[in-house]
Amino acid sequence: MLEQRIIDEIILNSLKEDMPMGDITTDNIIDPLETSKARFIAKEDGIVACMEVSKRVFTLLDPDTKFYKEVQDGTKVCKGDVILEFEGNTRALLKGERTSLNIIQRMSGVATRTNTFCQILKGERAQIADTRKTTPGLRYLEKYAVRVGGGRNHRYCLSDGVLIKDNHIKAAGGILNAVSKVRKNIPHTIKIEVETENFEMVQDALKAGADIIMLDNMSVDQMAEAVKMIGGKALVEASGDMSEEKVLAVAKTGVDIISVGKITHSVKSMDISMRFL
Amino acid sequence: MLEQRIIDEIILNSLKEDMPMGDITTDNIIDPLETSKARFIAKEDGIVACMEVSKRVFTLLDPDTKFYKEVQDGTKVCKGDVILEFEGNTRALLKGERTSLNIIQRMSGVATRTNTFCQILKGERAQIADTRKTTPGLRYLEKYAVRVGGGRNHRYCLSDGVLIKDNHIKAAGGILNAVSKVRKNIPHTIKIEVETENFEMVQDALKAGADIIMLDNMSVDQMAEAVKMIGGKALVEASGDMSEEKVLAVAKTGVDIISVGKITHSVKSMDISMRFL
Amino acid sequence: MLEQRIIDEIILNSLKEDMPMGDITTDNIIDPLETSKARFIAKEDGIVACMEVSKRVFTLLDPDTKFYKEVQDGTKVCKGDVILEFEGNTRALLKGERTSLNIIQRMSGVATRTNTFCQILKGERAQIADTRKTTPGLRYLEKYAVRVGGGRNHRYCLSDGVLIKDNHIKAAGGILNAVSKVRKNIPHTIKIEVETENFEMVQDALKAGADIIMLDNMSVDQMAEAVKMIGGKALVEASGDMSEEKVLAVAKTGVDIISVGKITHSVKSMDISMRFL
Amino acid sequence: MLEQRIIDEIILNSLKEDMPMGDITTDNIIDPLETSKARFIAKEDGIVACMEVSKRVFTLLDPDTKFYKEVQDGTKVCKGDVILEFEGNTRALLKGERTSLNIIQRMSGVATRTNTFCQILKGERAQIADTRKTTPGLRYLEKYAVRVGGGRNHRYCLSDGVLIKDNHIKAAGGILNAVSKVRKNIPHTIKIEVETENFEMVQDALKAGADIIMLDNMSVDQMAEAVKMIGGKALVEASGDMSEEKVLAVAKTGVDIISVGKITHSVKSMDISMRFL
Amino acid sequence: MLEQRIIDEIILNSLKEDMPMGDITTDNIIDPLETSKARFIAKEDGIVACMEVSKRVFTLLDPDTKFYKEVQDGTKVCKGDVILEFEGNTRALLKGERTSLNIIQRMSGVATRTNTFCQILKGERAQIADTRKTTPGLRYLEKYAVRVGGGRNHRYCLSDGVLIKDNHIKAAGGILNAVSKVRKNIPHTIKIEVETENFEMVQDALKAGADIIMLDNMSVDQMAEAVKMIGGKALVEASGDMSEEKVLAVAKTGVDIISVGKITHSVKSMDISMRFL
Amino acid sequence: MLEQRIIDEIILNSLKEDMPMGDITTDNIIDPLETSKARFIAKEDGIVACMEVSKRVFTLLDPDTKFYKEVQDGTKVCKGDVILEFEGNTRALLKGERTSLNIIQRMSGVATRTNTFCQILKGERAQIADTRKTTPGLRYLEKYAVRVGGGRNHRYCLSDGVLIKDNHIKAAGGILNAVSKVRKNIPHTIKIEVETENFEMVQDALKAGADIIMLDNMSVDQMAEAVKMIGGKALVEASGDMSEEKVLAVAKTGVDIISVGKITHSVKSMDISMRFL
Repeated sequence: MLEQRIIDEIILNSLKEDMPMGDITTDNIIDPLETSKARFIAKEDGIVACMEVSKRVFTLLDPDTKFYKEVQDGTKVCKGDVILEFEGNTRALLKGERTSLNIIQRMSGVATRTNTFCQILKGERAQIADTRKTTPGLRYLEKYAVRVGGGRNHRYCLSDGVLIKDNHIKAAGGILNAVSKVRKNIPHTIKIEVETENFEMVQDALKAGADIIMLDNMSVDQMAEAVKMIGGKALVEASGDMSEEKVLAVAKTGVDIISVGKITHSVKSMDISMRFL
Repeated sequence: MLEQRIIDEIILNSLKEDMPMGDITTDNIIDPLETSKARFIAKEDGIVACMEVSKRVFTLLDPDTKFYKEVQDGTKVCKGDVILEFEGNTRALLKGERTSLNIIQRMSGVATRTNTFCQILKGERAQIADTRKTTPGLRYLEKYAVRVGGGRNHRYCLSDGVLIKDNHIKAAGGILNAVSKVRKNIPHTIKIEVETENFEMVQDALKAGADIIMLDNMSVDQMAEAVKMIGGKALVEASGDMSEEKVLAVAKTGVDIISVGKITHSVKSMDISMRFL
Repeated sequence: MLEQRIIDEIILNSLKEDMPMGDITTDNIIDPLETSKARFIAKEDGIVACMEVSKRVFTLLDPDTKFYKEVQDGTKVCKGDVILEFEGNTRALLKGERTSLNIIQRMSGVATRTNTFCQILKGERAQIADTRKTTPGLRYLEKYAVRVGGGRNHRYCLSDGVLIKDNHIKAAGGILNAVSKVRKNIPHTIKIEVETENFEMVQDALKAGADIIMLDNMSVDQMAEAVKMIGGKALVEASGDMSEEKVLAVAKTGVDIISVGKITHSVKSMDISMRFL
Repeated sequence: MLEQRIIDEIILNSLKEDMPMGDITTDNIIDPLETSKARFIAKEDGIVACMEVSKRVFTLLDPDTKFYKEVQDGTKVCKGDVILEFEGNTRALLKGERTSLNIIQRMSGVATRTNTFCQILKGERAQIADTRKTTPGLRYLEKYAVRVGGGRNHRYCLSDGVLIKDNHIKAAGGILNAVSKVRKNIPHTIKIEVETENFEMVQDALKAGADIIMLDNMSVDQMAEAVKMIGGKALVEASGDMSEEKVLAVAKTGVDIISVGKITHSVKSMDISMRFL
Repeated sequence: MLEQRIIDEIILNSLKEDMPMGDITTDNIIDPLETSKARFIAKEDGIVACMEVSKRVFTLLDPDTKFYKEVQDGTKVCKGDVILEFEGNTRALLKGERTSLNIIQRMSGVATRTNTFCQILKGERAQIADTRKTTPGLRYLEKYAVRVGGGRNHRYCLSDGVLIKDNHIKAAGGILNAVSKVRKNIPHTIKIEVETENFEMVQDALKAGADIIMLDNMSVDQMAEAVKMIGGKALVEASGDMSEEKVLAVAKTGVDIISVGKITHSVKSMDISMRFL
Repeated sequence: MLEQRIIDEIILNSLKEDMPMGDITTDNIIDPLETSKARFIAKEDGIVACMEVSKRVFTLLDPDTKFYKEVQDGTKVCKGDVILEFEGNTRALLKGERTSLNIIQRMSGVATRTNTFCQILKGERAQIADTRKTTPGLRYLEKYAVRVGGGRNHRYCLSDGVLIKDNHIKAAGGILNAVSKVRKNIPHTIKIEVETENFEMVQDALKAGADIIMLDNMSVDQMAEAVKMIGGKALVEASGDMSEEKVLAVAKTGVDIISVGKITHSVKSMDISMRFL
């Protein structure tokens, strides 16, 4: 599901950060040919994400690493569960441990928090989406972890989606101008989203033929009103400091998408440890 | 304080992630010569970290960006405070906004959580230290943010510090062997730390002449006992799932260093937003 | 309009290709401090594209290069026209000449051929779009040159647009399945395009709610029929070995977009030469 | 024949350009384990070049790709011919298709146009050579494709060959000075070529002991005269807007080498398509 | 013992330097499938170092290279000894020969000269250490070769060790201030070394609690005196233009470490040649 | 004279090697705004080379570094001479010192040893040339330093020069075949050199029209004989373990070029130190 070229680049970068000139403890003690078995064990409940990346760390350090047992991405695991069992060169295991855990713990944290939001919306039509508030350098993995947790992705970056904000509107002299300026210069394969803060802007966005209308920092009542106004003529996205407490009420307003920064920018890593057998 | 070559690499990598082929909204609407003034505003209390990196994002996009007002790293700011005021090319401001905020928000989050721990230990001798449980690719900045928050750094990576763990000890046939194997092969400028889980191991580490003894997952009482046993002959580091609740009691045992993974792996980004003037 | 980070990467790569260890003619003859004036002269008619990149080659070799006169991208120039006049270090001029010309000649060729197609469609609603049949490594510039020539861009790459082809349809067990599988996993900001070869497929694509329907290798009559069938419920794109001869008839069928590989994969470089004054 | 390190760099760069974050159509529809058979089919006559690179694209995406049938570089194929038959992971096939075709189509185009020139010179002593007017980033492949088409290579770049032009001559105060300045500073393994525009310059180049004399933009009669003047004391290269119409007459003047920019800078990609079986 | 990621980077960089566009002799003569056997033969006595890197050059060029016989790093070989016997693709052997030899010859030279110093100190407690006077880009290999030759490593670089010199002391206003400023900001895993030039400075360094005291450019008598003064309270390092002639007298003063720049900056490559069988 | 892009790559690579995470001594003691003056002082006689690179180290660390006095490359300096005086940010000076010195010391060492050979040949026609026995990663600088010392360069690498050796001859079935195979596939701008070990091979090389004939490991008498045999029909290069003792006798045989590995592979760094004022 993940592009190996991309994850390898992330992993090699991390290994270089952690071992610019080798592991001076392990290299001086552990026999280069020794092999060991180890396990990843969940130390709390959560949704696992990026198992493939986590394993790849070890394979890059020792191509002969064998994986015996593993939990699929998206699986909900409980405290104490074995989520991976594998065997390989002991040096490789010790050198890769921290890098591998740092990745799977963070990404499982992202998937888990995303899933919490999704569970709250169970049965609702609205879907949770991520934002560009991701960790520099890890967006590819974090966007994937959001999907693993049950969320949807928003645009990947500034190059593949249009979001017309306040400043763009002012500079263009209104929503209509802004939308039409953009429309003629972007690929016809990309939708246009307009950020609105009040009903007048919503109306303008509709007139301009926006494909998606973002309701930014509106109250739940305003959102409900706006959804009615839009009447299915555009996708509706709710945005603005979403929390687990608030999200269900927002969903009930009839919006299609609720974007949440917290699922990537404020995540508790899932506690996972590696044990040698 | 930070090496520009290193932060530039991180920033350029992030900008590439967010703009592999430009910003299709901004480039099609905003005049290339327009300039704007903007502010970073704290939306909650916290300790600011990596202001320099945050500013550098804009300078890399527009070398003529001017910075009028800024808060120094380590400053405790309150909700509503202006922490940066600057002026530059409007396109550059819009393109750099997210990358700049993603960095300063996370790093201020690290500094803030570190500082919470440090405040608890005020007046105690023990110091808070970080771990290698950092975000892949951002260790350099996170270790810096820990210092900004009042913490100390542990070894940077596997190449510049020795930490002899369980597996090393088993492979070497005991702590004495492990320490002596390592000592003769590493730079004489690096200290040797041994991870211990019980008093016997503490004794062995002392005999082996370890420079630092880590007490791993011991109870507070055990730690106090171990500290006495060591009697100043080595630095003592407490480790193992430290929390704000537990850390003061640990400090009271007389340990020198308390290492805490949470200050880097489970951080809430500090809420900061950019406003155009 | 172009992201400097991206064009610099292309230019530096080209300079390295042309001068892995310097210019052994120039470095041994020309005085390091000598400066010269030079001109770029069109040796045939055409539309200029990537002037900015062309100039940047010289600025990277000599930051003090001065540009006195230049034609804007998109300008139609005639044989004999001076399109750029500049002055700088003579060594830099001689070293950058070929790289600079190689870029501007090719990109002006792309813009010129694109414009030929656009001129034919003058007054028609249909627009010319590019494809992914671009030169490896130069897509960013070629897609820009297409816009300069009056064309539109199709998706940039496999990551930012959906095009469901024959094999996807077979693998998914029909268009409906294919569209629905994709829809739930991609950003809600991206449109879905389906490639169709007959009316049945067009009907299926409509039912599936495709945003864009590509008519692939259909006859002009079939296209006209398909356009009627679609009736404005989706954007219609005509595709398949388009030529200057055929394109007007295709436009008359009422399609919205006509994608043309030739404007990037089979281009005659515009003849431009550099003259020292 | 081609250095794998070099072609891998070009291919990986191209794949990254086409898939910065994966293929959002294929990844969401095609089963990760599915395999398919496919063929490359010539849709027009031409000389195949860079088959090895074309195949390598798929091997890099799926190391288990099997190749059953393939045409050797330099083979003249006809419309309808199968030039490659292979089998591999379906995702890899769909992801690599465009990159692979973009390379083989362009390079076969280069080989084909080169060969057209070579056929015209059949039986003549003069040989066709390329120039530095190549596509930025693809010189290594294009120079190879020229050889495949029957042409010779001129110097690879500014670092491995000397070509003394007008400006060098002026700066040095004459051809004699220019040649002697260069000769003492370059490797003794590299020949010296002088560009001449009239008989006086030819005489000077001969006196200076130039290894190669380029006749730039001379008429056919002038070239014949110059060849006589040189009398075998240096290699003679004809240069200046060569075309299929003009090249035979130039060859008849007795020059050794005729360099042609068109074979790399103005090439029609050979039409090749991929079909699934 | 060496990290493969690191040595591969060095090797690939070297191969690119030696073959930016292939080997035009070998590629045009040698059959691509031909294989050969070859030997590395010592042409003078010495200590072999970096055999693993030397072999890796060939494996990177031909993964099927087979190695039959090889001497371990650290082995003292004599003129005429076969130190490596291997078989592989003939083109790979010819292309890798120079790069492989350039590495093993230099590193064996480093190990050999280091060993000369170590032999002189046989029976003494003092150990030979390297410095940062290494070849740019090759420090990782040269520090390894020093260990192979029997020496110890000093700090790897400016980031992993503290050495407080004259200028630091002046800027800080004395050794005490300098040490205390550094101590609170560096990892607790790193020792602090102070460079001293006279007894007063030695006393200050002791008071400041320096872990290591460097005696810089002192006479043998002064060193002996300083060692007494320090009395085991810090490691003592002697430094300053050490030579084979002087080193034993320095060792007799009781210092712990003698650092020698010559073992890396002024080395005669060990003469080794490759012979085809 | 040197290409800045290339030297910057070497310098930045070296600075990264020496400061992967900053300078923990300097950054914690020296005020970030402090400036200092410093000098480079020759501590032994020699020929200076790569002053420009040496200075560039500091400019890259502090763009405002000012250089007051400097010795030109190729200057013979004496013990005690000031070869560079400059002023800049104190941190930059301390951080760049080692990298800058490591480069200028080694390159001055290369120029100095080259010059020793050249002095011996004063008045002779034969010239000293380098080989490919250079330090991995530093060939560009070392080849330059050879020229600074008065030597000539041999081919830069395997891609820009032909040297037909024993194995090529065997594989091709004789010198004639080898030369003709190569000649038709390489740029016409490159000369062909053949390595010979006896008179018969010399004769064959002459017949094959080799541009350069290398006399490998022949005695002085044999060389004299071979030179006569060749009679000016090819350049003659002497090769094989050249030393200061042997080189004059070799020159007297009438060879044109004498290639010497020692001037790059076995060099004593010139002793230069940096002093703060």
